[in-house]
Amino acid sequence: MRQFKAIVEYDGTDFAGFQWQSNARSVQSVLEAAIEKRTGQNVRVACAGRTDAGVHALGQVISFRVNTEIPIEKMALALNSALSKDITVRKANEVEASFHARFSASSRKYYYLMLSRKMPSAFLRRYVGFTPYALDLDAMQTATESILGERDFAAFANELQPGKPTSRDLMRFDIRKHRGLFVVRVEANAFLRGMVRTMVGTLLEVGHGKRDPESLPDLLATRNRKLAGASAHAQGLCLYRVRYGVRKEYGLTRTEEFEETE
Amino acid sequence: MRQFKAIVEYDGTDFAGFQWQSNARSVQSVLEAAIEKRTGQNVRVACAGRTDAGVHALGQVISFRVNTEIPIEKMALALNSALSKDITVRKANEVEASFHARFSASSRKYYYLMLSRKMPSAFLRRYVGFTPYALDLDAMQTATESILGERDFAAFANELQPGKPTSRDLMRFDIRKHRGLFVVRVEANAFLRGMVRTMVGTLLEVGHGKRDPESLPDLLATRNRKLAGASAHAQGLCLYRVRYGVRKEYGLTRTEEFEETE
Repeated sequence: MRQFKAIVEYDGTDFAGFQWQSNARSVQSVLEAAIEKRTGQNVRVACAGRTDAGVHALGQVISFRVNTEIPIEKMALALNSALSKDITVRKANEVEASFHARFSASSRKYYYLMLSRKMPSAFLRRYVGFTPYALDLDAMQTATESILGERDFAAFANELQPGKPTSRDLMRFDIRKHRGLFVVRVEANAFLRGMVRTMVGTLLEVGHGKRDPESLPDLLATRNRKLAGASAHAQGLCLYRVRYGVRKEYGLTRTEEFEETE
Repeated sequence: MRQFKAIVEYDGTDFAGFQWQSNARSVQSVLEAAIEKRTGQNVRVACAGRTDAGVHALGQVISFRVNTEIPIEKMALALNSALSKDITVRKANEVEASFHARFSASSRKYYYLMLSRKMPSAFLRRYVGFTPYALDLDAMQTATESILGERDFAAFANELQPGKPTSRDLMRFDIRKHRGLFVVRVEANAFLRGMVRTMVGTLLEVGHGKRDPESLPDLLATRNRKLAGASAHAQGLCLYRVRYGVRKEYGLTRTEEFEETE
């Protein structure tokens, strides 16, 4: 048996998210079908970030274990020849048996694109969130800076699993503007379910002047999801890069630490 | 009757080009249907650049003449409510009766995006051309600079109409690189049919080392389309902006001057 790591890019528009579902086209099922087609084996694919329906990836990382004689330099091509155009294996490597796309990852980085202008964009509609209202960049920058670091992010989680820790290390959270396009970058060791889109939705309310830019630490202290903003639309979100390597320790068990799902 | 000018954005993927065709979904027919739905009148829409099938627009300009009481500030919204998501009217203005989207335009500016890397991009596939080969940026820059200015571009035209002039003023033609993404900008008073994609295709051959970067002026001198490069794929091309205002004179008649179709 050989262990593989692969970097996968997809347009999430026509996927029901990463994770396998009956009667829906998921990234996982499409990848597993391609691996079975090329190796004859039915394997389970693990991923670094379980993206929701409609969320894209430029740098999703998967791992799987399979018995095959396909040379490593042909692996990406072999899988791509069994995949549709909206999903591509960018690179495949053979890795040590202990590697796991989720458990071995030290951080995930996402981009969220938000278009603020009068009319939606026909050209960008599949890849950006949209608001017809003006956004206050300064207020949003203040808000992003206020919650960096290791904190309890339960208030941003769509569901909490009893007994599972809700602390994460937010290493990067910033926002820039290019004409009417706002680019949010966010990187953490891991994310709780729904966390990125709730962060962006809450940030939008700050940008619209509906929420105090200094109020986010207090919001986090409530641990109450109902007090945070609405979830931002899926199509603006893209999993950009997953890092592997040294990571800080959080006093969590290995499996608990990476129970993120977005 | 009132005369309107509108800026239109579209994702060209699911259009058979701008111009009306029987049994195909064209930008023109979709716009004319929306105008008819909102005004009850069947009008003809003129455009600044007749984009081919699959070519996008961020800043196409159209003009039309219609009898309606819709206030100008509601016009874009009214049309958008009758259009599908892959086409948007960004802005509508009321203009003098002599305004014509094509004949009044002084220049058209296009972008061409070309991805050069091992694997195609699932995320960008609808909006970029693709080559698995490396491209020589310096050679391509040399080539672009060599054909600026007013020249006979017949060698780049997919079809020549007898007696029609083939001279155009190429004001801008350059190429930049952002990681694996090459961005070609091209602006001219007007373009011959197929001219932009032939220019890009020829430039690609320079980038691949198959064509001398200094050879483009000689190629133009032949006026022979067969000696130019293959047409670059439609999906990488986008009509970015159309300018109106003072323009240089070319000794052409008004209608002849703007017989561009891309």
